[in-house]
Amino acid sequence: MPTCSVTRRVHFNAAHRLVNPARDEAWNRETFGPCANEYYHGHNYELDVTVTGAIDPETGYVMDLSRLKALCEEVLLRELDHRNLNLEVPWFRDLIPTAENIAVVCWRQLKPHLPPGLALHLRLWETPRNWVEYAGD
Amino acid sequence: MPTCSVTRRVHFNAAHRLVNPARDEAWNRETFGPCANEYYHGHNYELDVTVTGAIDPETGYVMDLSRLKALCEEVLLRELDHRNLNLEVPWFRDLIPTAENIAVVCWRQLKPHLPPGLALHLRLWETPRNWVEYAGD
Amino acid sequence: MPTCSVTRRVHFNAAHRLVNPARDEAWNRETFGPCANEYYHGHNYELDVTVTGAIDPETGYVMDLSRLKALCEEVLLRELDHRNLNLEVPWFRDLIPTAENIAVVCWRQLKPHLPPGLALHLRLWETPRNWVEYAGD
Amino acid sequence: MPTCSVTRRVHFNAAHRLVNPARDEAWNRETFGPCANEYYHGHNYELDVTVTGAIDPETGYVMDLSRLKALCEEVLLRELDHRNLNLEVPWFRDLIPTAENIAVVCWRQLKPHLPPGLALHLRLWETPRNWVEYAGD
Amino acid sequence: MPTCSVTRRVHFNAAHRLVNPARDEAWNRETFGPCANEYYHGHNYELDVTVTGAIDPETGYVMDLSRLKALCEEVLLRELDHRNLNLEVPWFRDLIPTAENIAVVCWRQLKPHLPPGLALHLRLWETPRNWVEYAGD
Amino acid sequence: MPTCSVTRRVHFNAAHRLVNPARDEAWNRETFGPCANEYYHGHNYELDVTVTGAIDPETGYVMDLSRLKALCEEVLLRELDHRNLNLEVPWFRDLIPTAENIAVVCWRQLKPHLPPGLALHLRLWETPRNWVEYAGD
Repeated sequence: MPTCSVTRRVHFNAAHRLVNPARDEAWNRETFGPCANEYYHGHNYELDVTVTGAIDPETGYVMDLSRLKALCEEVLLRELDHRNLNLEVPWFRDLIPTAENIAVVCWRQLKPHLPPGLALHLRLWETPRNWVEYAGD
Repeated sequence: MPTCSVTRRVHFNAAHRLVNPARDEAWNRETFGPCANEYYHGHNYELDVTVTGAIDPETGYVMDLSRLKALCEEVLLRELDHRNLNLEVPWFRDLIPTAENIAVVCWRQLKPHLPPGLALHLRLWETPRNWVEYAGD
Repeated sequence: MPTCSVTRRVHFNAAHRLVNPARDEAWNRETFGPCANEYYHGHNYELDVTVTGAIDPETGYVMDLSRLKALCEEVLLRELDHRNLNLEVPWFRDLIPTAENIAVVCWRQLKPHLPPGLALHLRLWETPRNWVEYAGD
Repeated sequence: MPTCSVTRRVHFNAAHRLVNPARDEAWNRETFGPCANEYYHGHNYELDVTVTGAIDPETGYVMDLSRLKALCEEVLLRELDHRNLNLEVPWFRDLIPTAENIAVVCWRQLKPHLPPGLALHLRLWETPRNWVEYAGD
Repeated sequence: MPTCSVTRRVHFNAAHRLVNPARDEAWNRETFGPCANEYYHGHNYELDVTVTGAIDPETGYVMDLSRLKALCEEVLLRELDHRNLNLEVPWFRDLIPTAENIAVVCWRQLKPHLPPGLALHLRLWETPRNWVEYAGD
Repeated sequence: MPTCSVTRRVHFNAAHRLVNPARDEAWNRETFGPCANEYYHGHNYELDVTVTGAIDPETGYVMDLSRLKALCEEVLLRELDHRNLNLEVPWFRDLIPTAENIAVVCWRQLKPHLPPGLALHLRLWETPRNWVEYAGD
């Protein structure tokens, strides 16, 4: 059967700040600029979740996108949506919540829940002009 | 001269939460749902700033959009961008930072800085699927 | 309190064809072109639902957009989404399902469910380059 | 019959520069900045053409959008698309081709070709973050 | 000469339903949900057609995008636009018209018409939040 | 450390025409159609600049996107924005300014300024429906 990629876009809103607690305030302010603001700021994140695999001849699907959407809601959005990433999400207890790190964490959380044999690629939009991509290592 | 509207879109990122301090936590949670989360969440706000007036025959402009953009940056974005609206922006000391109230506050801050004779209309996007408009009273 | 407009975008997918049963096939083909195709075609419709009214000082809302979204789902999307507008939706039994008529029907169905004192304006996107607006009569 | 607005988006690419020949170069450079560059620059213009009127009960249309699109192509795009507005379009022989003036000129050219009884409103996007609107005087 | 990818986006509107005729109605309803609706629903499909190859030094083109667009219209859109994919398009006589299968079919139809030496990649948007990609096997 | 791609979108407006001076006017008109218009036309170009590399554990960044944006402004936009590509930009003295060639030139100009070890991929949008990609040779 042909190999195809299918994508579902999901979204969440969250607050965050960028800070490396091992460095002092001057370093953080210089490195992260306004993103280091101690009272947080936030984004509308859009997450494009792409899975790649063979088309199932019985359904014509690589994977049912409704199931993929439900999986993302349960595994990712329930933890991230309307949250403060620094204070409320344990995944970022020892990790700076940059877009890069959010994408890596989402990939690692989601991958074990996918059917075997499907590759996973994530694109995370922090703003309409800034985004990151991660496809595992 | 013909009357025309011109718009410049500007943007800012901010954290906020919705809470009415005069009411108890149960009321706030029921009224605002996840938007009441005490640790904040955030958005990429897009603000469409529209001014309406006669076209100046010497320039062909209603108003120079570079000047309008600079005005928005000085009067609005410097106060709002990468900020926590509840904790850091005095305009919301006694006002819940809903999209409606943010739009009204921006209108009242910006209007006195415009050249006389220009009407002002604001559209504030909280997400690509939710927005508000305010044109003064 | 200031008067403000708030909008929620909702969407539905549907099949339709444009045909006036009182006229013959040649007239229909000439008037509606490929839109008259007897086996139907379809669209991803986006519906921008705007309500206008005073901001409630206790909530900072004109109307809770979650409630507006739920209302649209119950009153409109349950009837229209993943449907054939000509064959399955009684509202179009005697009405050609053009974008104009869909907008008018949605307005008349939704308006009675809104809190009193709120004006309603609808924008219906049939494609990203074609849309209609209706605000009542 | 209900009154409704229908819109068709059309587009054209053009080169232009902003210059008032009655003023000297220093004034033009200060007023128009890089837009005064003597060798021109350009844009992808999007033009949203909105007509408002009663829905025809026989067709369900305010106006056939295919006909509106064809009219825009014949009356407007044939003159503007892939052109230098300053050098090749007679409408701007004595008029600075700002977005405001382009919108006014398009409105005056298109209006006489519309069926009687329809109002016309134009929105011209010069970039995705700058646009103007004109609805006649 | 450098190797480059060039893309042209084309679109079509179509009705379809998802059904595997070898399985019973209960299976189809459970597998495809509302997409199995027997009276069809529809979409605005956007198709991003990407060809990759060396830049021709005489034209600066990998391939003239006007020619690519015309080819897509003749080979693909003439068969798909304003059609019912299940009833009117022979390509889907024995194939469920999921986005995956539509992409594969379009690739196989279009590829033989391209100049030799160009790779082909397709992205098909079923909605702005759901899309598939296919690049051959 | 995980390998990730990060993208910043920047934009510029420019005028250009497509012409091969080694060929006669008839050939140019036939090959380039309205794009050969001797008085130029123009576009709003959007350039998606993607760099790929390991995430720095100290910052959580592959590369600071503010620095990438500043680099693009200095190396690319200062040369291209509000310019006539044929007349004013030396990079196109002997090169037809098609989207393909603009992308290749931008890649070659920008690459030496990037930190070592980062791969560079560019996507250049000439219109919202036409774009090219280049990732080096």
